[in-house]
Amino acid sequence: MSMYTLKGVSLIGEDPASTSGSEFHAVDPGSGEALAPVYRSATAADIERAVQLAAGASAALAQTSGAERAALLRAIADELEAARADFEALVPRETALPQARASGELGRTTGQLRLFANLVEEGSWVDARIDRADPARQPLPRPDLRSQRIALGPVVVFGASNFPLAFSVAGGDTASALAAGCPVIVKAHPAHPATSERAGAAIAAAVQRCGLPPGTFSLLFDAGHAVGAALVQHAQVSAVAFTGSTAGGRALMDLAAARPQPIPVYAEMGSINPVFVLPAAAQVRAEAIATQLHASVLQGVGQFCTSPGVFVIPAGGDGDALRDALRARFADSAAAVMLTAAIAQRHAQGAAQLGAHADVAALVAPVQKAGCAQANLFEVSADAFLRDPHLQEEVFGPTSLIVRTRDAAQMLQLAAALPGQLTVTLLADEADYAAAAPLLLQLPRNAGRVLMNGVPTGVEVCAAMVHGGPYPASSDARSTSVGTAAIERFARRVCYQNVPDALLPPALQEANPLKIARLVDGVMQR
Amino acid sequence: MSMYTLKGVSLIGEDPASTSGSEFHAVDPGSGEALAPVYRSATAADIERAVQLAAGASAALAQTSGAERAALLRAIADELEAARADFEALVPRETALPQARASGELGRTTGQLRLFANLVEEGSWVDARIDRADPARQPLPRPDLRSQRIALGPVVVFGASNFPLAFSVAGGDTASALAAGCPVIVKAHPAHPATSERAGAAIAAAVQRCGLPPGTFSLLFDAGHAVGAALVQHAQVSAVAFTGSTAGGRALMDLAAARPQPIPVYAEMGSINPVFVLPAAAQVRAEAIATQLHASVLQGVGQFCTSPGVFVIPAGGDGDALRDALRARFADSAAAVMLTAAIAQRHAQGAAQLGAHADVAALVAPVQKAGCAQANLFEVSADAFLRDPHLQEEVFGPTSLIVRTRDAAQMLQLAAALPGQLTVTLLADEADYAAAAPLLLQLPRNAGRVLMNGVPTGVEVCAAMVHGGPYPASSDARSTSVGTAAIERFARRVCYQNVPDALLPPALQEANPLKIARLVDGVMQR
Repeated sequence: MSMYTLKGVSLIGEDPASTSGSEFHAVDPGSGEALAPVYRSATAADIERAVQLAAGASAALAQTSGAERAALLRAIADELEAARADFEALVPRETALPQARASGELGRTTGQLRLFANLVEEGSWVDARIDRADPARQPLPRPDLRSQRIALGPVVVFGASNFPLAFSVAGGDTASALAAGCPVIVKAHPAHPATSERAGAAIAAAVQRCGLPPGTFSLLFDAGHAVGAALVQHAQVSAVAFTGSTAGGRALMDLAAARPQPIPVYAEMGSINPVFVLPAAAQVRAEAIATQLHASVLQGVGQFCTSPGVFVIPAGGDGDALRDALRARFADSAAAVMLTAAIAQRHAQGAAQLGAHADVAALVAPVQKAGCAQANLFEVSADAFLRDPHLQEEVFGPTSLIVRTRDAAQMLQLAAALPGQLTVTLLADEADYAAAAPLLLQLPRNAGRVLMNGVPTGVEVCAAMVHGGPYPASSDARSTSVGTAAIERFARRVCYQNVPDALLPPALQEANPLKIARLVDGVMQR
Repeated sequence: MSMYTLKGVSLIGEDPASTSGSEFHAVDPGSGEALAPVYRSATAADIERAVQLAAGASAALAQTSGAERAALLRAIADELEAARADFEALVPRETALPQARASGELGRTTGQLRLFANLVEEGSWVDARIDRADPARQPLPRPDLRSQRIALGPVVVFGASNFPLAFSVAGGDTASALAAGCPVIVKAHPAHPATSERAGAAIAAAVQRCGLPPGTFSLLFDAGHAVGAALVQHAQVSAVAFTGSTAGGRALMDLAAARPQPIPVYAEMGSINPVFVLPAAAQVRAEAIATQLHASVLQGVGQFCTSPGVFVIPAGGDGDALRDALRARFADSAAAVMLTAAIAQRHAQGAAQLGAHADVAALVAPVQKAGCAQANLFEVSADAFLRDPHLQEEVFGPTSLIVRTRDAAQMLQLAAALPGQLTVTLLADEADYAAAAPLLLQLPRNAGRVLMNGVPTGVEVCAAMVHGGPYPASSDARSTSVGTAAIERFARRVCYQNVPDALLPPALQEANPLKIARLVDGVMQR
């Protein structure tokens, strides 16, 4: 299969983007070598053109049928699959992730696109509600009221570094925004520009193949933050989606909130994803738990949003045995190259800060090497952990902190004190259920997803998934960035009162031509 | 029926509130007379106690069953009805609204509470989603995932001045937040403290009667803005609901966005609620339209969020005839007392500014009297209206601006240029439908509710209602403050992964003990 020729410039509609923006290039994280081609940051004119094209496409895209949007999403999935060889070459080179990961992540990405295609083709996601007129009602007649969800308008998506396909240019944010009928402008992550360009070209080809306006999708490059900031502040942009650091997400939240017309920001940020090991589980299966947790932390060199950073383990002999089993596995981990040199450096700093903390003991002594990470494991008492909020902050990478709790009461106290989390996990045997019950009442208050006897890495793409959580895990606890409910982020409800049937959108017409589920006079009908 | 004895202090749990706060009193808007009793603003200690009680009640309230919350909402409705005589005395005295309005609004308020009671008793609003496990799936087994909506936590509600019952202490925001399982702290509107206290006492009695924690509901008084600001900034508060001015709503949005942990603000703010009169309708029924629009503007002395402030009317003879019919009715309107002297003054200022505008013609010459409003009607060309954004701002009260459009294209241009609206109305005959169709595609982009051949005043409380709209009509276009969907503002989704059935909340248990509608493996089931 012939390789796509990378152009090194933003993709905006059908005309070439400016080549006068500042230069940058990707870096091979393993060798530190600069990678070709040189990329050009988008200019102010590029930004303006991308946003105007998106705004111009907005009404047409919002009015496409679910079937038309499904065709687009499937065409994108097909175009991405046709580029499999390109991704298998580009992703490892730019991210140090193995080829098998690139290939697996491509499957997740196309599966996600096709899931949204099915959702909007079926159509019930618009949540149609019909309350029919009652002209005889006293004291006043009741009007005919019908509401459904419609697209918000142009969405800016920030590609994430840690999932160069599934949370980047053609990832879940883009898929769900297009599914809702919103034009998308992606700000590419500068760490994988070639992967981004290839995915962007696949989307642009699909847009063209489906006969949709070119403003449906644009991809802008930037080595720094200026392009992203300008997009978030642009009056024609309606919403923002981001996956990344708390600092980065908060900066976008603040920009969006300060606009003359504030817009929603869906930022999926950091999380320490605590794992609570209950006493019976610790006693019965310490070795199995240690293997499971160690594997979860090492997945993707700890660069998953849901990587478990804290293990809450009871004090005493059984807890000690689990601690020792974890120590043995962490001590035995090979060093691995991280996504970028900067991420590796921040990881090393975070680990060093933990190691230097007066109340924290280092359980392993990894050799730190530039660009790489080796697994770290630390231990602290729950008393100290509860005292110092810094210990509750994420260290992005394969570093975990064991927190030892005195008793069930302290475990519950710790659960209640947690800042917002993407996930919290309980490892519990049947003998632990009495202790698990109050934790299961508390933990949903602090997290988007509560797991039992599993690991938080691996985020299923389905209707019930919640990948989000109270701040600072995400900017908006009411939303999820993974699963079909992610589409709701990019829609709002509009109500039609006494509008004649012929002038109503199809989802609300009396005959239900789309055959969707609708709430009619309080009863769910199909 | 014996009148409840007003105490003049905040209602916080079961102990009396502080009497050391600054004093204020309501004013009879008709006479300007100070009304007894003297009220005390909540102190910092009052605020802290109210929030801590709410936070303490939060988990218990979130875990009540839908049936328990339904009982609370119905008990509140009963308590309010038992106080009917009190409201019929207090509301007119504090607001200058007639007794019939107090009585009608009480019915709306109790109806609203009972609607939410039915909603949560039925229970499907939690949007339960179940994706069952598939241990045989390749390459990895699929876990069991189940999600549902849960309560956000303590909600601060700001009472609105213009609906002293239905959008105040026991109004839709309080009803929907309690329905979701959130404790509520109301900051009473200082213009109707006695009405507020009476409604607060009814809620407190219902909370006690239902055996719920006293922190379920508190009512705080304040003559100024300090108490509200402190509540919005308090770390234990999870969300804010507000109905009022754009300036007030935006101030709360900015405070909430600047918190260490930002929280959602649902502010329903101003709107000019334009009415587009299409040519055939103007030609065929000018007199009827003039009567209908004039009555809508005059309702509640123009003090409805959905009062139509702009009439878009074609140029030419038919439009002139409609303009003249409107002028005749507006000229013939009696002066009426507004809710407060300050509102009347702002209304007079707004009308004076319109009258002084170089491009605007005054069609009637009302006599302005302190505390009162008489209807104003102005006229401007669409060209001038489109040029000056100030002309697109709300004048709260019975003042309307006729905007004359050259042709259908300019009407569409004007529709596209509108800032966010709560409502937009089309008055159209069948001969207008061809012109109405493109407007009906455009207007949902700018408004929460689109009406045909009706008036925007009168907001039906039902499943399909959207009372909200793009900024600046509301802070969050994804939400509605009226109707059953208002409950979604105070909930977020949480997901359970591989949690054993016995430890799951009832809504997600395999046997569906609550008998609610659930999305199971992609299929809606009951």
